Amino acid sequence: MNVLWVFAHPERRSLNGALRDHGAATLGRLGHHVRHSDLYAMGWNPLVGPADFGHDPGGRLIVGAASERAHADGGLASDIRAEQDKIAWADALVVQFPLWWFGMPAILKGWFDRVFVQGFAFGVTDGHGRVLRYGDGGLAGRRALVVTTAGARPTGFGPRGVHGHAEDVLFPLLHGTLFYTGMDVLPPLVVTGADRAGPADHAAAEAALDERLRALPSAAPLPYRAELGGDYDDDLVLRPVLAAGRTGLGVHRTDTGEGAEGVGGAGPS
Amino acid sequence: MNVLWVFAHPERRSLNGALRDHGAATLGRLGHHVRHSDLYAMGWNPLVGPADFGHDPGGRLIVGAASERAHADGGLASDIRAEQDKIAWADALVVQFPLWWFGMPAILKGWFDRVFVQGFAFGVTDGHGRVLRYGDGGLAGRRALVVTTAGARPTGFGPRGVHGHAEDVLFPLLHGTLFYTGMDVLPPLVVTGADRAGPADHAAAEAALDERLRALPSAAPLPYRAELGGDYDDDLVLRPVLAAGRTGLGVHRTDTGEGAEGVGGAGPS
Repeated sequence: MNVLWVFAHPERRSLNGALRDHGAATLGRLGHHVRHSDLYAMGWNPLVGPADFGHDPGGRLIVGAASERAHADGGLASDIRAEQDKIAWADALVVQFPLWWFGMPAILKGWFDRVFVQGFAFGVTDGHGRVLRYGDGGLAGRRALVVTTAGARPTGFGPRGVHGHAEDVLFPLLHGTLFYTGMDVLPPLVVTGADRAGPADHAAAEAALDERLRALPSAAPLPYRAELGGDYDDDLVLRPVLAAGRTGLGVHRTDTGEGAEGVGGAGPS
Repeated sequence: MNVLWVFAHPERRSLNGALRDHGAATLGRLGHHVRHSDLYAMGWNPLVGPADFGHDPGGRLIVGAASERAHADGGLASDIRAEQDKIAWADALVVQFPLWWFGMPAILKGWFDRVFVQGFAFGVTDGHGRVLRYGDGGLAGRRALVVTTAGARPTGFGPRGVHGHAEDVLFPLLHGTLFYTGMDVLPPLVVTGADRAGPADHAAAEAALDERLRALPSAAPLPYRAELGGDYDDDLVLRPVLAAGRTGLGVHRTDTGEGAEGVGGAGPS
């Protein structure tokens, strides 16, 4: 497979840096081709602005419309187009970052903000004029693996842990970004206890990463519900017979039927 | 009250810009004092890096330790200290942004990444050496109101909407950042349908914002569970008798007892 490894850490001599180097070597040994977007090393600009779209700053900037037009005209900034070319080349994305304030570092958030524009990552339609989204879309056919490190202990990220279940906390990225654009999203690898990690912990994290990378072509993705699969009504609300009477992010998975007590414990990660 | 209004939009001639101007005027009429952090206008740098901490780039940067030390020594970069001074002055924060990829624009994420450092926003202890977090902490005594705009229709952000319930999608900010640091977090104002908003929609959004701002000193905060309130065990897992048998982010609210059907519909927003 062709794998794009997106990495967002300011220090390559970190646990994250070591994991990235280790994982890229593993992919090479497995016969995959790897390209890198090392955002700090690239000096990536994370700020959406008029220059992205060749927009005259004298006129009002409407981000969605300007980005769609610039994409269609080939007028997006060259650094954005270079990232889109890498994604077009890739069969899989690995997105790796330290979890800061329960989300991505700004430099990585700004990679999605600037690169995943309308007409490229989303806002594409099928032959019937329906917008393809959640399970289909501009990046369909690709797999995505999120790898993140957190200082907290693992129990705090469990189904009833104080921080929220890791998959729920990562929902805006896993579901709202990667699945939204059509990708098959694998269960994330969350390396906990990173602040206190010793050599044995590093080795365990490398082994866990290797296992995920070996399964990259074949692992079952998170069973999120496709928008056009019939589970949602015309208002985009889950039909009453599915996960009946329940709310919470877990209802958007197909493995949470009426009898399930909750999604957290049933998840594959 | 002293109110710090943090604003993250590249275009002040936007719906967001109009709402910010309208809201600040409303606060003034109500007798509050307002200061602004208009991140795009300030040219805010959102990237955590060695220069934040006076760190020698030749040595390995450990972000948590370096930021805590620099904060304690008064050695944080001057732009970070200026924002911390504004927060110290404020009784309430309004955090306003367009919802991009179901989260904050990079420039705003990087405001939290750089300003909310250990020893200032978190990692402070009580007289018994216990770390104060989730309901108490470095920013305790302040209120926080999140105001965001989304292109999507409101039903999609409802308790069973395809995008996830708005409060769950915003959980990393509301719970994992604002509540984590000790603030009282008010129900967010989510202005939907922003892409198609006409003059009547603008007026409705301004009216909704005014209502929230009038209630800023008095509105009941989201009833998240305090970490040290006895609801969590020593592993930071919710005790089995609370929201028994359930998972999902809603269990971290005190208004979801055993008999509740789910958090989404019960929420105050």
